[in-house]
Amino acid sequence: MLMYNEDIKGFFSSREELNMPDYLTLEYYLECVGDIETALAHFCSEQSTAQWKRVGIDEDFRPRYAAMVIGLDVLGELPQLSYSVPHSETGKIHACRVTIAHPHRNFGPKLPNLISAVCGEGVYFTPGVPVVKLLDIGFPQEFLSAFDGPKFGIAGIRDLLKAYNRPIFFGVVKPNIGLSPEHFGEIAFQSWLGGLDIAKDDEMLADVEWSTLADRSCELGKARIRAEKETGEPKVYLANITDEVDQLINQHDIAVKNGANALLINALPVGLSAVRMLAKHTKVPLIGHFPFIAAFSRMEKFGVHSRVMTKLQRLAGLDSIIMPGFGSRMMTAEEEVRDNIQECLQEFGHIRPSLPVPGGSDSALTLEAVYRKVGSVDFGFVPGRGVFGHPMGPKAGASSIRQAWDAIEKGLSLDEYAIGRPELMAMVAVENAKKQHS
Amino acid sequence: MLMYNEDIKGFFSSREELNMPDYLTLEYYLECVGDIETALAHFCSEQSTAQWKRVGIDEDFRPRYAAMVIGLDVLGELPQLSYSVPHSETGKIHACRVTIAHPHRNFGPKLPNLISAVCGEGVYFTPGVPVVKLLDIGFPQEFLSAFDGPKFGIAGIRDLLKAYNRPIFFGVVKPNIGLSPEHFGEIAFQSWLGGLDIAKDDEMLADVEWSTLADRSCELGKARIRAEKETGEPKVYLANITDEVDQLINQHDIAVKNGANALLINALPVGLSAVRMLAKHTKVPLIGHFPFIAAFSRMEKFGVHSRVMTKLQRLAGLDSIIMPGFGSRMMTAEEEVRDNIQECLQEFGHIRPSLPVPGGSDSALTLEAVYRKVGSVDFGFVPGRGVFGHPMGPKAGASSIRQAWDAIEKGLSLDEYAIGRPELMAMVAVENAKKQHS
Repeated sequence: MLMYNEDIKGFFSSREELNMPDYLTLEYYLECVGDIETALAHFCSEQSTAQWKRVGIDEDFRPRYAAMVIGLDVLGELPQLSYSVPHSETGKIHACRVTIAHPHRNFGPKLPNLISAVCGEGVYFTPGVPVVKLLDIGFPQEFLSAFDGPKFGIAGIRDLLKAYNRPIFFGVVKPNIGLSPEHFGEIAFQSWLGGLDIAKDDEMLADVEWSTLADRSCELGKARIRAEKETGEPKVYLANITDEVDQLINQHDIAVKNGANALLINALPVGLSAVRMLAKHTKVPLIGHFPFIAAFSRMEKFGVHSRVMTKLQRLAGLDSIIMPGFGSRMMTAEEEVRDNIQECLQEFGHIRPSLPVPGGSDSALTLEAVYRKVGSVDFGFVPGRGVFGHPMGPKAGASSIRQAWDAIEKGLSLDEYAIGRPELMAMVAVENAKKQHS
Repeated sequence: MLMYNEDIKGFFSSREELNMPDYLTLEYYLECVGDIETALAHFCSEQSTAQWKRVGIDEDFRPRYAAMVIGLDVLGELPQLSYSVPHSETGKIHACRVTIAHPHRNFGPKLPNLISAVCGEGVYFTPGVPVVKLLDIGFPQEFLSAFDGPKFGIAGIRDLLKAYNRPIFFGVVKPNIGLSPEHFGEIAFQSWLGGLDIAKDDEMLADVEWSTLADRSCELGKARIRAEKETGEPKVYLANITDEVDQLINQHDIAVKNGANALLINALPVGLSAVRMLAKHTKVPLIGHFPFIAAFSRMEKFGVHSRVMTKLQRLAGLDSIIMPGFGSRMMTAEEEVRDNIQECLQEFGHIRPSLPVPGGSDSALTLEAVYRKVGSVDFGFVPGRGVFGHPMGPKAGASSIRQAWDAIEKGLSLDEYAIGRPELMAMVAVENAKKQHS
């Protein structure tokens, strides 16, 4: 629809004029080509009432159904778009930070329809707005109240493990692909003996012919009970049930019956809505992994900010969220990792906190840095090769992690605390060798 | 795992050395930092066997479980990464086109696990490979055979409509958000009378309090029967059942019982696996819409190429795929639109062709250009405001589309053919007014 001046005004409003409980608030970074207000009116129109009246009838659906600009910060003019994108408009280019009130009555409290609204065709195909990043979504309690969120949350995971006032120690059993269920179980068993709370399947290992979920969860369920008896501590086997969505409930039931007491799910690959379905059904904590998210969150000024995905994963009901962690190894700015951790922990209506698990090439040597950056004990620590590639084996690998935590608690350096503790010493030695080598 | 020279070799092979039916072939654009072969070995390792032996045991999981480089084209050295991404490696930067053989036994014929493998953590978090675009996936018949693909395909849609040797004429009922089911039905009815084959819900309109799917499909089902009686032609009401995945089967059943004879689903927002589930169940053709895809496909050198998503949507069972169409309005290069159309139509094992629907601000005025660019009649044409914003109303809007097709068939210009046809003339006049205005 051609936009005239009076049309454009219908897409601008303010928090004072609107009944805000009826609206989500969407924060976008936009690069607008041509007149900014025209582009923004189109941006609102395209994601809501693209044609707001029938031909020949005097009506206006905008007051009830239009998305509206309620905040605009023009960041400056740009010599060119930050990314080359074909587009139809001409004129000056401005970078803008925009707040939009989007009426949730247009779709209701449903994740697929929410996603279609806030990062759908309207958002990414508005004339004059070729570059878009969705930065955040604010939900009124009226919308949130339809969601249950995590069934267990951080407190539930801690109660299950009787582990308080410290991080939760995960480990990704490695070799991640190729081990028989029996060998997999033996390695997990060793890691539990060494001090891991949670031995987990890799996000790439699910139900395959050479290691069916049924066989693996059976072996691991038995190994877990043995480890609990031997250590006197509760342990968790985190089984990856990522599968076609019509199999998820069945896979949950098989894994839990066999002794998996938490379940891993690749949230975006199955879809956030499938996570929500599973969360309603689950008898054990659900932990999400992050495949696919980088494909639309890594660009600084395009796509969707990862914090939005963390928020939606929590909303969908994940009790814990594994995410790219600190350090350039994980190609994520430190501020972004902090944002994602905060999304797990901060107040969010009646929705329980999720345990954040910032991960990526961790070991006894990185624990203190992660802990300092997180700033609390409410996180999960998830080495893979740092435990299972330990030169003395997985039990020693797990011990090295717990020894590193003991050192932190006692305020001692790793070098100091490693004396007389060969498991930790072996890791310190690796690091020292690397330093000499470089 | 540290990579030594002999380790790197384990991730390189050739089509001749491998049993290719065991492998998917993945095409990537990569920007590698530092030694190219080391980076590529990591790239393969991270997406498959990140640790390929147990500590202290002489074994090697790579021959059976490793992804391997089977093709490498170094495109050239770059002065810097195409996009600023934090990363840990240093050295020269090279743009590469890489073909990787990825063993599908690592995950099996399951869409969420496939997605986790080909655009998961391994792919986007490999040291030395901060910039990645997945360009294509090749499937051996051994993998494809587990999929049913579209139940109806192009032939099924044509048979339903008894419409052959011409494009299929869709229209998105507008106003898209805000109409009562009764008014929505009346407008769709008019558009069918004017000559549309398929009147469709907007991708943003699903099951909402003010227009429940039950009420709307009931009104539209009745209106469709009336239109079929009046015109003597089969008509389709395409109902949008996008919803939480545990509601999809139920929504299918409600809509179909009430007279919807095709269903719209926002594929990525519900998840491709949910589409596959629905395709197994459906009694009517399934048409997919494209929200969210632009968020990870628009960057030229990062993310996932849209052709991969078209291929996966076809594999999941969509009988027709709506996609961003031609022209800078839709911010998609012409070659990319052609790639996506081809993905719908080309030979794909036993998987039926899907009807491609390249869309975006179409009208009687754009039909010929789209037809010429598609190069065949096997496409759907999907105006919104071009039909429902027509100055003489939706019946005239639909007529203008059919008149435009008649003109093409007769080899006449629109200007010529519009004489004595006020519906088409009104559209031609709009265009002429615009030309004068600009």
